[in-house]
Amino acid sequence: MLIPVNPAPQQTDKAELKQQQEELRLALLERQRKIRQQHRGVLIVVAGDDRSGRQHCINTLVSWLDPRFVQVHAYRPNGDQEAAHPFFWRYWRDLPAGGQLGIYLRDWTSTTLDLYLNDLISEQKLQQRLTFINQFERDLHNDGALIIKLWLHLDKDAHAQRLTETANTPFFETKDALALHNFEFASERIDHVLKQTQSKHRRWTIINSEDSLQRDIVAAQTVVKAIDAWLEDPNSTRSDKHDFKPSKKPWLQKIDLSPSLSKDDYKTQLAEQQALLRHNMTLIQHQDQAVVVVFEGVDAAGKGGAIRRIAHALDAGYYRIVPIAAPSDEEKARHYLWRFWRHVPGNGYLTIFDRSWYGRVLVERIEGFAEDVEWQQAYAEINDFEAQLQTHGVKVIKFWLHIDEKEQLDRFNAREETPHKQHKITEEDYRNREQWPAYEAAINDMIEYTSTKECPWHLIAANDKRHARVEILKRLNEALQSDN
Amino acid sequence: MLIPVNPAPQQTDKAELKQQQEELRLALLERQRKIRQQHRGVLIVVAGDDRSGRQHCINTLVSWLDPRFVQVHAYRPNGDQEAAHPFFWRYWRDLPAGGQLGIYLRDWTSTTLDLYLNDLISEQKLQQRLTFINQFERDLHNDGALIIKLWLHLDKDAHAQRLTETANTPFFETKDALALHNFEFASERIDHVLKQTQSKHRRWTIINSEDSLQRDIVAAQTVVKAIDAWLEDPNSTRSDKHDFKPSKKPWLQKIDLSPSLSKDDYKTQLAEQQALLRHNMTLIQHQDQAVVVVFEGVDAAGKGGAIRRIAHALDAGYYRIVPIAAPSDEEKARHYLWRFWRHVPGNGYLTIFDRSWYGRVLVERIEGFAEDVEWQQAYAEINDFEAQLQTHGVKVIKFWLHIDEKEQLDRFNAREETPHKQHKITEEDYRNREQWPAYEAAINDMIEYTSTKECPWHLIAANDKRHARVEILKRLNEALQSDN
Repeated sequence: MLIPVNPAPQQTDKAELKQQQEELRLALLERQRKIRQQHRGVLIVVAGDDRSGRQHCINTLVSWLDPRFVQVHAYRPNGDQEAAHPFFWRYWRDLPAGGQLGIYLRDWTSTTLDLYLNDLISEQKLQQRLTFINQFERDLHNDGALIIKLWLHLDKDAHAQRLTETANTPFFETKDALALHNFEFASERIDHVLKQTQSKHRRWTIINSEDSLQRDIVAAQTVVKAIDAWLEDPNSTRSDKHDFKPSKKPWLQKIDLSPSLSKDDYKTQLAEQQALLRHNMTLIQHQDQAVVVVFEGVDAAGKGGAIRRIAHALDAGYYRIVPIAAPSDEEKARHYLWRFWRHVPGNGYLTIFDRSWYGRVLVERIEGFAEDVEWQQAYAEINDFEAQLQTHGVKVIKFWLHIDEKEQLDRFNAREETPHKQHKITEEDYRNREQWPAYEAAINDMIEYTSTKECPWHLIAANDKRHARVEILKRLNEALQSDN
Repeated sequence: MLIPVNPAPQQTDKAELKQQQEELRLALLERQRKIRQQHRGVLIVVAGDDRSGRQHCINTLVSWLDPRFVQVHAYRPNGDQEAAHPFFWRYWRDLPAGGQLGIYLRDWTSTTLDLYLNDLISEQKLQQRLTFINQFERDLHNDGALIIKLWLHLDKDAHAQRLTETANTPFFETKDALALHNFEFASERIDHVLKQTQSKHRRWTIINSEDSLQRDIVAAQTVVKAIDAWLEDPNSTRSDKHDFKPSKKPWLQKIDLSPSLSKDDYKTQLAEQQALLRHNMTLIQHQDQAVVVVFEGVDAAGKGGAIRRIAHALDAGYYRIVPIAAPSDEEKARHYLWRFWRHVPGNGYLTIFDRSWYGRVLVERIEGFAEDVEWQQAYAEINDFEAQLQTHGVKVIKFWLHIDEKEQLDRFNAREETPHKQHKITEEDYRNREQWPAYEAAINDMIEYTSTKECPWHLIAANDKRHARVEILKRLNEALQSDN
C-alpha cells in the first residue's frame, strides 16, 4: 500500500502558492550552487503511475532550476547500440558529472516495472534485475552521489477521474481502461518493486499527484530536503562496512614460475592457437556475443607482447585495445567504473583492457589514491560489474601475468640497454619495486575476492615469455569455447 | 588513369623481405612515439578496389604498430544514431586524440564512392558530398593533423585473377562478376572521385595490390614517409592564407537599442510566443528535424533569462542546454569543433548552445588563445560546419544579444547587490569591459563573415529584457516555420 507524503489536495490561497513557488525556486538554485561547489552528482528519478504527470513534473522542476546544469534523460525504447550492450550501459553512460544534476524519466526501475506489469519478464529475470538496480544505486551512493527517487501516485479514483477527462480526446488509449480494470493487480506489483528497490539512503518518496501544482511543489520540496540532508552529512552516503579481512592464501607464491617452451614448440603452438582464436572469434560474432579480456600483471611481465599475439589473430575492425593510464578530467568527475563502462564492447566485438578496474584495489590502494573503505568495497562492486556483463552475454576473461623480482630486474636492465625500449622504463618502475611486498598482499586479496566461479583469474607464469603467450592463448580459447 | 607508386610485383628474396618488415616495424614504432610526444593526431584512410585486401592491409599495419595507440574504425551501415545525425557526425566523433593514430576502413570517401558506383546518389548530392569531404579534411589539416590516404589498386587482369581464385568458394559473389564487367566504367568514376578529393597536402597514394605482402610494405613505407615529411615541417599542415580584411560595417553600432515592452504586453506576447514555440517544436519532431540555437552576446546581456524562456515552452526530454566554458582535456586534445559536433542533436531534438564555436573568433581571438591564422580561417570552417548541419535538415538559429556599456555596468552593479546573483559577477567581468572596443571589432567581423543567407545572425536589442525575450521567441518561431 503506497502512502503519499502529502495528504489529498487542499484549497490553498493563490498568492500563497505563488510565494511558495518563488521560495522553492531560490532554494533550488541555492542547492545547485552548493552541489557545483562540491563537485558532487545528483540523480533525480521521476517515476510514477500512468497519467500522474511525470513529464510535466520534470518540466516544472527544470523551470525552477538553472537549466544549464541539469540534464534530463527521457529514455525511449532501446536503439541498436543500447540493444547491443548490457542493460545498465546506457544509464552509466548518462551519469551526471560532479556538480551536475541528472533527471531520469523512464529510468531503470520504471523500465523493469513496465515489463513486470505486462508479464514480459520471468520471475527469475525480475529478481536479477532488481538486484542489479540495487547494485547500481549502491555503487553511486557509495561514491558520494545522491539519488532522489520520486513516485508520482494516483489512487484509483483520481486515476479514473483523469481518464474521464481524456475519454473523448485523442489522448485516450484502450490500455488506459485496461489499466484501471487491473488497478489492484498493478498496485500490488508496483508496491513489490518499490519495496525491493529501496534502502535506508535510497527511499522512494510517494507523492499524491491529484493536484498537479501541489505535486510539483512537493516534488521540489523533497529534492531540497534530500539535498540538505546529504550536504549536511557528507558521510551519509558512505558505506561504513569495515569487515575486510586480508587473504591468508599465498596465491602468488603458489604460482609455479618454472614452465618454459622451446622456440620450435612456441612457433607451432602459437600458430595453432592463433588459428583457433580466429575461428572462435568468428563463432562469437555469429552468436552476437561480446568479449572483454583483462590484462593485469607486475611491471615488465609481458602484457604488451601477449596482447599483440592475441591482436594478430583478429580482424582489426572487431577488437579494440584500451590502455588504462591516468583518467581524463571527464572520467575523474564520475564514478571510477564509468570510464570502463564507456568501453564495454557491443555484441560481436572484443575489447582488451591493458590494465583495468583492478587498479582500484592495486595501485590506488597502495598509493593511497583510494581510501580504505573505497578499495574495500570495490571487490563487491567489481564482482557485480562483471556479473552484469556476463548476464548480458559478455564473456569476461582475466589474466594475471606473474614474474619474480629477479626476472623483473633483468628485464628492466635489458630495456635500458635496448634503444627502442628505453622509453618504457622510468624511475617510477624502480620505486615500485620497493613496494613489492605491499603489492603481493594486494594481489593476493584481489585474487581471493574477485576470482569468482564465472570470472576466475587466470594466473599465468610469465618468467618465460614464450610459455606465457601460448598459455594465455590456450586459456582464452578454452574460455571462448566454454558455455559460461 | 590510376598510376601506382609501386611497379608490378617482383620476385624478391625472402630473407630480404623479412629484414624489410622488421625495419618497417621499428620505423613505425619510432614514428608513433614521436606523434605521442607532439600530441598530434594522424588519420590513415585505407580505401581501394574490391578484393584489394583493405582489411588485410589494416591488420598488417596494426600488427607492426603499437596497437595500444591505434584505433581502427571499420564502419558498417548506419545505425539509428548515425542515421539521425549529419553524415560527418560519426567521423568527427571518431577523430583520434592528439598523440593517437586512427585507421579508417569504409571511410567518408569510400562510402560516397560506393553510392556513386551504384547510381545511388544524384550528381548534385555527389558534388556537395565531395565539397564536404574536402572541408572536413581541410579542417583537420589546418588544425595540424596528418591525413594519409591510401588507395589499394588492382588492375583489370589482377582483379580477374582474384575472382578466378575465389570462383568456387563461398567468397564469390555475383556482384564481383558484374564489377569486372563494368571495370572501365567504375575506373572512370573512381578516378573522378579520387581527383576531386585530393589537394597538395592530402594526396591519394595509389598502391599496386597484386602481391599482398608488397602491398602492405608499400602501405607502411608510405605511412612512414608521410609522417616524416609532416614532422619535419610543422607548418606544412597550416594554411598560409592571410587575406583577412576587417569588416568596415558598424553592425553593432547600427543596432537600435531603444525598443522596450510594457509589463502587460510582455506577459501577453510571451505566453503567445511560448505556445507557438511548443506547437512549432511538435511539428519539427513530426518532421524528424533537429534544431540548434546559438546564444552569444556581451556579458550580462541576458542570455540565461532568454534561454529559460525558450526552455519553459518545451518538453524537458527533447531539448538540451549546453553551456560552453573551458574545454575538458578530452576536448583540448582534438580539433576545436569536436566538442560541438559531440553535442549536435539527433533528429527530433533541440540543442541550445549557451556560447558556442564563435568563441574561436571572439574570446580566443582577443585573449590570444587562437593564433591569427587560426581565428581567421575559422570563419570559413564555421560557415561550412553550419552548412553541413543545414544540409542534413538541422535548423541553425543564431542570436547575438546586445546591450550598451552603460547598461552593462548597471547590471553588474545590480548583480553585486542581489545575494543570489553575486556569484555571477567576477573581476574578470570588469576586466573584459576594458576590451570593449576590441570585442566590438571582433563582433563586427563575426557578423560580417558568418551571417550567411541560410544562417543569418539575429541581432537582438537587449537593453530592455522584456523586449529581448519576446523578440527572440518571435525570431525563433519565424525561423522554425520557414522552409529553410
